[in-house]
Amino acid sequence: MSHNGSTFRYLGKGHRLIEGLEKVTGNAKYAGDLKISGMLHACLVLSPYAHARIVSIDASAARAMPGVVAVLTADDLPTRDRAVNSRHSAVLAKDRVLWRGQPVVAVVGETETAARDAADRVVVEYEPLPPVVDVRKAASPDAPVIWTEGLPKEGADLTAAHAAVDKGEQETTGAPSNIHDEVHFARGDVERGFTEADVIIERVYCTPMVHQGYLEPHASVAEPDPYRGGVTVYASTQGQFSVRDEVARLLSLPRHKVRVVPMTIGGGFGAKYGIIDPLVAALAVTVKRPVRLVLTRTEDFLSTTPSPAAIVELKVGARADGALTAIQARVLMDNGVFPFTLGGIVSILLGGYYKCPNVKIDCYEVLTHKPQAGAYRAPGAPTATFAIESTIDDIARALGRDPLAFRLQNAAETGDPMGNNDPWPPIGLRLVLERLRDHPAWKDREVGPNEGVGIAVGGWPCGMSPAASVCRVDTDGTVRVHVGSVDISGVNSSLVLVAAEILNIPPEQVELIQGDTRSGPFAGPSGGSQTTYSVAGAVASAARAVREKLFHVAADHFEASAADLELRNGMVSVKGFPDKAISIGELAAIAESKAGGPGPIVAEGSAAVSENAPGFVAHLAKVHVDPETGQVTLKQYVAIQDVGFALNPTMVAGQIHGGSVQGIGWGLYEAMVYDEYGQLLTASFMDYNLPAFDQVPDIETVLVENPSPHGPFGARGVGEPPITAGAAAIANAIRDATGVRVTEIPIRAEMLWRAIQVGAGLRPAPTPMGRD
Amino acid sequence: MSHNGSTFRYLGKGHRLIEGLEKVTGNAKYAGDLKISGMLHACLVLSPYAHARIVSIDASAARAMPGVVAVLTADDLPTRDRAVNSRHSAVLAKDRVLWRGQPVVAVVGETETAARDAADRVVVEYEPLPPVVDVRKAASPDAPVIWTEGLPKEGADLTAAHAAVDKGEQETTGAPSNIHDEVHFARGDVERGFTEADVIIERVYCTPMVHQGYLEPHASVAEPDPYRGGVTVYASTQGQFSVRDEVARLLSLPRHKVRVVPMTIGGGFGAKYGIIDPLVAALAVTVKRPVRLVLTRTEDFLSTTPSPAAIVELKVGARADGALTAIQARVLMDNGVFPFTLGGIVSILLGGYYKCPNVKIDCYEVLTHKPQAGAYRAPGAPTATFAIESTIDDIARALGRDPLAFRLQNAAETGDPMGNNDPWPPIGLRLVLERLRDHPAWKDREVGPNEGVGIAVGGWPCGMSPAASVCRVDTDGTVRVHVGSVDISGVNSSLVLVAAEILNIPPEQVELIQGDTRSGPFAGPSGGSQTTYSVAGAVASAARAVREKLFHVAADHFEASAADLELRNGMVSVKGFPDKAISIGELAAIAESKAGGPGPIVAEGSAAVSENAPGFVAHLAKVHVDPETGQVTLKQYVAIQDVGFALNPTMVAGQIHGGSVQGIGWGLYEAMVYDEYGQLLTASFMDYNLPAFDQVPDIETVLVENPSPHGPFGARGVGEPPITAGAAAIANAIRDATGVRVTEIPIRAEMLWRAIQVGAGLRPAPTPMGRD
Repeated sequence: MSHNGSTFRYLGKGHRLIEGLEKVTGNAKYAGDLKISGMLHACLVLSPYAHARIVSIDASAARAMPGVVAVLTADDLPTRDRAVNSRHSAVLAKDRVLWRGQPVVAVVGETETAARDAADRVVVEYEPLPPVVDVRKAASPDAPVIWTEGLPKEGADLTAAHAAVDKGEQETTGAPSNIHDEVHFARGDVERGFTEADVIIERVYCTPMVHQGYLEPHASVAEPDPYRGGVTVYASTQGQFSVRDEVARLLSLPRHKVRVVPMTIGGGFGAKYGIIDPLVAALAVTVKRPVRLVLTRTEDFLSTTPSPAAIVELKVGARADGALTAIQARVLMDNGVFPFTLGGIVSILLGGYYKCPNVKIDCYEVLTHKPQAGAYRAPGAPTATFAIESTIDDIARALGRDPLAFRLQNAAETGDPMGNNDPWPPIGLRLVLERLRDHPAWKDREVGPNEGVGIAVGGWPCGMSPAASVCRVDTDGTVRVHVGSVDISGVNSSLVLVAAEILNIPPEQVELIQGDTRSGPFAGPSGGSQTTYSVAGAVASAARAVREKLFHVAADHFEASAADLELRNGMVSVKGFPDKAISIGELAAIAESKAGGPGPIVAEGSAAVSENAPGFVAHLAKVHVDPETGQVTLKQYVAIQDVGFALNPTMVAGQIHGGSVQGIGWGLYEAMVYDEYGQLLTASFMDYNLPAFDQVPDIETVLVENPSPHGPFGARGVGEPPITAGAAAIANAIRDATGVRVTEIPIRAEMLWRAIQVGAGLRPAPTPMGRD
Repeated sequence: MSHNGSTFRYLGKGHRLIEGLEKVTGNAKYAGDLKISGMLHACLVLSPYAHARIVSIDASAARAMPGVVAVLTADDLPTRDRAVNSRHSAVLAKDRVLWRGQPVVAVVGETETAARDAADRVVVEYEPLPPVVDVRKAASPDAPVIWTEGLPKEGADLTAAHAAVDKGEQETTGAPSNIHDEVHFARGDVERGFTEADVIIERVYCTPMVHQGYLEPHASVAEPDPYRGGVTVYASTQGQFSVRDEVARLLSLPRHKVRVVPMTIGGGFGAKYGIIDPLVAALAVTVKRPVRLVLTRTEDFLSTTPSPAAIVELKVGARADGALTAIQARVLMDNGVFPFTLGGIVSILLGGYYKCPNVKIDCYEVLTHKPQAGAYRAPGAPTATFAIESTIDDIARALGRDPLAFRLQNAAETGDPMGNNDPWPPIGLRLVLERLRDHPAWKDREVGPNEGVGIAVGGWPCGMSPAASVCRVDTDGTVRVHVGSVDISGVNSSLVLVAAEILNIPPEQVELIQGDTRSGPFAGPSGGSQTTYSVAGAVASAARAVREKLFHVAADHFEASAADLELRNGMVSVKGFPDKAISIGELAAIAESKAGGPGPIVAEGSAAVSENAPGFVAHLAKVHVDPETGQVTLKQYVAIQDVGFALNPTMVAGQIHGGSVQGIGWGLYEAMVYDEYGQLLTASFMDYNLPAFDQVPDIETVLVENPSPHGPFGARGVGEPPITAGAAAIANAIRDATGVRVTEIPIRAEMLWRAIQVGAGLRPAPTPMGRD
């Protein structure tokens, strides 16, 4: 495969997952697998109410149970004086409970069973209080205010990691309110834009809280250092450094006293930035022994951080010639009990996919008595994309235009404004549309009875935390690459290729070493599609520095100029003298023993790219809808994505498969359903509906390689984009098959059947959001 | 304290051991402390004969014992086809046993007790063969030859690490012989030199096998990776990389499949370069479970690698004006069953302490049926020093000269030839003698009845393996320093000071991270006084590179030139603008988040010094000898040493204390005594006599700081020199007290009493070496 005029030997070709063997043999070590000498087990008592006052806690019966070491409440922990203002840093409830599932008491026992049995004996007396569950009600001026005295202060903006874009001015309103933040973006004059429009479509779109649905529930083991007062946390996390900082803050420890070791992770998708770790660390420090906590699936559903629900009121106008004239949106985000701010990114995407001179977006971040919302793969993007791409599809239809040609006409290009009016860096939105235009699934589409084909685009700006890497060559030629990033997506299998390519050695000769907060080096958390984009650049830089050092040793060895050397197959040779060749391992051995030489072959490299590299997709879904039941069957699915350059196409395709399946989940299956009391009705995989194997068609992935100017070898972030467009493409396909426009996801059979019965535009009740 | 014109804040001042807390609280993890899930325990069956044929091994009864997992012999292990030619790589005996204590069978059981009980049931039938025990007999042409078909080939010269000097041409004789190597050095014409001499003294000096006597016996835990075929070894070692290479070679594994993790070490002194690790790794790979082996004290005495015994025939001549005219020596080294080559270093020192135009040294390396000899702190130096410094003392006496003034007259200076005729790099031999000359213990010495004062010099060339280090700054200002060296001497406490000094932060803000063979970076084994000399330079280089990166970020932050910045107390500020200051932690945070910035603060540094930095000592001992018993009591001890520059004087003084005590052990107490059958008579601390607390006087340490040109901040290696001179100083003090010249160490009471009875020069029998 060639790229930028050069030919790659390993990059750009498919390679298997390097840790596959550990995983399929059950040998990979997850946090919950750890057994530490003297380790205790924790079990949490969760609040049964969405809002209540804690009247009393009677732990006497629990403490009397055999094998119980401690029964602890908020005041027993070193976190007692620190502000808890995020579920990311939650410890135990104090005085009040604010959502169903909030941890109230922790029982620590010699075995998991002992802890669980004792947790059942803890008697907590509550005085139930009226919960604020509905987001519209919560946002209204006369709503009961959740944080009457303001939110506890301290802490950091945890959404910053996900997308390196300006999320706009976030105003905090003065008077007590459940609206904790607002963002407002505008360009042009939307009123005039609508007067210029020949067609206007205005709808209200609803997307639910969706859970990340990782295979491995939250798990953490904390081991205190009773001699020096620190703690080591073995975490299931996407970012050990951010967990470390939060554990240190909440336990009032200097950061260097907290070591966070990221274990193999069984899925994170945005939810694993340290939810239970501060609590487990606090328990361990308090009981002075290692403590392990692994949530059950139900506990995980109840107490972690699903994606926020949203209501998007969207109005779009276009002229008869196809040009968009105005986009106006009002967005309500349902963030649960602590602030979370996706309004900025929702706005960026709502007003950014298409050229439009007049845009006005007003976004309100709302608190309710539900678990705090958190990041879920491309957080905010499925919501924004479902809204804008459903509307665009209908405008094209209203204008009698081909929906793909209509999108191509309006598609944003490099330099066009995003929803926040910042210009897009180089993007490939048009390219993916053109590739779809020429794809047989679109070009030659045929539909049978009750079938339809829908398309949608989607995109993600891509994060770009700086990162460093250290590269070393051993005497047997093994190249070791140190990184501080967590592998949530097979990225390590790509990083290995980067070093292999630069040093021209088989990937099997490269070992990737993932550091913890102590051993480093630093990398940002693995989220926001930034890991390959940032860390691969650091690895490349370190490998290149190592190559230079090898050339230096070889030049000395051959008494040649470094400029006359070449590196092939792990051998450095003098150009034109193939006999004059020495392996990189032998060079390392020379360097490790030569007095007055350059010293062992070790080098550092770093990357801090100055511009992000958005990834765009065009998805196509073909559906069959059973008019008798409303049952939707996916017949075909094509995912086209601008990946910049696929370092390891196997992993990239895997990312696109996984993201597409999750997009299908958004479209057809998944929702956290709360009743009017704030009780979660879907707290198990029996009730929370993940797409099953037989509900997912073959997904065809098409990689468009539109190199990013700054990414390593032109790579772009690829993790988030595949989830963005699925719900919209499916909704558009259903519209194509049935004539019904559904404005709420997931599009479940019953809902669709009702809509088909009543006709387009039906808004079924009751809704998943408990609105009336 | 000032040095080279600059003032240091932390270097050169005493600081406590950083791992002291772990050690005194029992929290430090030694290899034997490890508990790995599924771990088995090994016990060895040792040969009861010094030389025998293995007729049969019946393991049936052992295998039938409860809790026994495997009973294994040489042929059962993956090492079966590899050459075993060094006790450093010993596995199990095959066909023959070659020394008393050679491992023959390994029993692996669920518990240590099960393994040990079963080991007692293994029945090995031997056909005893005549052993070659006496080194003179072994070296004679008609001796039975131990390796009739030559030594098994493969492997490396393990003495290379100890002293970075040319050890001369080592000729291997053609005909089968127990003399496995010879070295010959000469300059001038010794015959003529002796004809010019006014006084000639010729003596035969004997030094015994001495055991390193570490507190922690050899211990190793090996954990196989059944999925990928590798093994991790948790070792008590001074050098993980050399252990790794040898385990890989013997198990026929590529090096990257072997990971060696150096645990806290309870003393090594040259003996811990991997004696039992290959065997334990082979057992683990064979039984496919982790295996632990910790030798008992007696097993350790029987099967490890004591320092070689030696016979030095030394003839020295001098003119009446005090000038030395000739030095001639013939040296026999008793190396046990596998080759070990200290003849070179013995020769370098014998012919190197003093200016002398005519030198001839012939050294023979001899095999016997004893355990292979190995390195012990300044290997060869106590032997060479005892011989030359006893003779020099007597020559001074014979010439009626003050022994110190006589030494000063002849002391070698920078550029003078060593015994191998290479020039000394800058040395401070004259300086330590001058310091002793002016010291009250010498200048104002007074002796009572039966008391005497003796002095001796000693020296060591100092090793200098290249080393690398990686330095990182965390957001809380913690500076982490990665090294691949093992801390056997408190060196880490000095390395921390180097980084603290360069970054101007309290040492408590620096964390030292010791790597394993996987996490690196590379450093040579900790031996030969090279660790501070090599690794501190690498740390300094990495810390300086980090400082540059911090200045780069700060320059950007303050919009100033890096040249206008200064770093004090962990704050970078603009010179003259004390308000413009930012902590290194804040700079690290900026670097970790700034798009387009320099990236996280990480830097590599290395050192590969081109010249070694010998360390010289002058020791003074004052003794009282009880004429009725021959009992020697040390009344005073002064150790003066050229340390170049003491990075951490507390640790340097500790090194000198420890080495001096071991030198006292050589002089008065320690010997591995073998009988004529090759049976070790001193296989426990009841029989092997280490100096006890009440046998060691206060040791006064005097640091002479004569900076080395290449060492970090002028430091020299300090570990080996303190052990070199003790035996000679004590022998000279005894001569001063009694008139008796004893030519054999240790100088035990009985031996001395006999010598006093019979008169000077008595050679007591039987000797520890079993000579007739």
